[in-house]
Amino acid sequence: MDLKYFFNRATVREYSNRDIQSSDLNEMIEAASHAPTTGGMQLYSVVITRDKAMKEKLSPCHFGQPMITTAPVVLTFCADFNRFVNWCKASNAQPGYDNLQSLMSAILDVTIFAQQFNTIAEMNGMGCCYIGTTTYNPAEIAAVLNLPKRVIPIITLTVGYPKQDEQFKTDRLPLQGIVHNEQYHELNANEIKDVYSHKESLEVNNGFVKENNKETLAQVFTDVRYPKDTNELFSDKLIKFLKEQDYL
Amino acid sequence: MDLKYFFNRATVREYSNRDIQSSDLNEMIEAASHAPTTGGMQLYSVVITRDKAMKEKLSPCHFGQPMITTAPVVLTFCADFNRFVNWCKASNAQPGYDNLQSLMSAILDVTIFAQQFNTIAEMNGMGCCYIGTTTYNPAEIAAVLNLPKRVIPIITLTVGYPKQDEQFKTDRLPLQGIVHNEQYHELNANEIKDVYSHKESLEVNNGFVKENNKETLAQVFTDVRYPKDTNELFSDKLIKFLKEQDYL
Repeated sequence: MDLKYFFNRATVREYSNRDIQSSDLNEMIEAASHAPTTGGMQLYSVVITRDKAMKEKLSPCHFGQPMITTAPVVLTFCADFNRFVNWCKASNAQPGYDNLQSLMSAILDVTIFAQQFNTIAEMNGMGCCYIGTTTYNPAEIAAVLNLPKRVIPIITLTVGYPKQDEQFKTDRLPLQGIVHNEQYHELNANEIKDVYSHKESLEVNNGFVKENNKETLAQVFTDVRYPKDTNELFSDKLIKFLKEQDYL
Repeated sequence: MDLKYFFNRATVREYSNRDIQSSDLNEMIEAASHAPTTGGMQLYSVVITRDKAMKEKLSPCHFGQPMITTAPVVLTFCADFNRFVNWCKASNAQPGYDNLQSLMSAILDVTIFAQQFNTIAEMNGMGCCYIGTTTYNPAEIAAVLNLPKRVIPIITLTVGYPKQDEQFKTDRLPLQGIVHNEQYHELNANEIKDVYSHKESLEVNNGFVKENNKETLAQVFTDVRYPKDTNELFSDKLIKFLKEQDYL
């Protein structure tokens, strides 16, 4: 088996000045569209942002993360029943997709599509970064990108050629933390300790603990990176948007 | 650019008798775990089903689709905050992940992970099929696989070596149907017609229209494959399960 790329890949946050050719970008998107999709429905769209002014408008939606304005290309991948429902209406068919299962299908479709694009770009010498804030401000992103009803921004990828060869290496949990044979085995306290020990031992992670004056690495996640009040605030915003967009 | 695999891949629904070595399976899962993940949290698990009796138990959860019992390996990919929350509790950290944004992160993480596995398996000569019914009967699947709180089955992949070389080819919408430059352009009636004309012209799709006594291909989707009442029934089941699992 040839797994070298998959083990060695890493997120790229800094990009060179080299642009991405439009023909290459379109070809990669077309190739990615051959990824699996629910019932052949392709419940997604992608909006390409290259214009500097548009990047400046998207930037605050992502809390000013620098990759939005420094990458040559920003891709906003959207769960999209708009096109499919319009096709149904034009075809004397009554769509019934204003519900959670339909939203789930569209979220899975767009995520598979985005990840396939990510793999294609990385395998062809480009680098990408998943911007993890796309579902935090969906209404604001929809306003910038002119998203109509039933179109939900789910994933943002910044894309470019890497500025340097050295990238952040991915540290991952050992296999026994994520794989279960035949039935799920809930990890006990000792097993949890084992599974997270490598992650907790890394210098970079110990740095985060110290910088933030925390006792444990988990506290960096619960108190700083993904705290309860922030999660709840942005969950309420997302629920409101999903209702406005006719999914809930 | 080398995009050949990506354009030519296809779902595989029939498998040869050749088994998948456990060492190969584990190595592919480990490679897939290096795919992007929210904040390095890896909010997923995978349950491996090889046992015949377990496949028989899973089968009705997927409405008896034959791939579940005929594939050598069935993988159930789960959105999983169980491990992470247990780690937080063991680390004097207060988790706040009982909400929609956290669920979204876990769904994206597990979908990216599953799709990366799918790509790895296909690139190494295996074939896979996404079973699109995993979120329809989550409580039933959880009972079979012993899934604890905060573990949601999202994607099922059947995996094996292809029985034959010829597979269903993927027909996909033309690029102008899914790509938008700078801002979303809602397709008008003529554009919708153009975008779906190739799909509607395919012999296989016209066969579906005739078999089901429908007027249009869209009606096959709205009346037969994904009808409103079924979508709503299984949305209610999913919402109930998500509440029981502490996500909503």
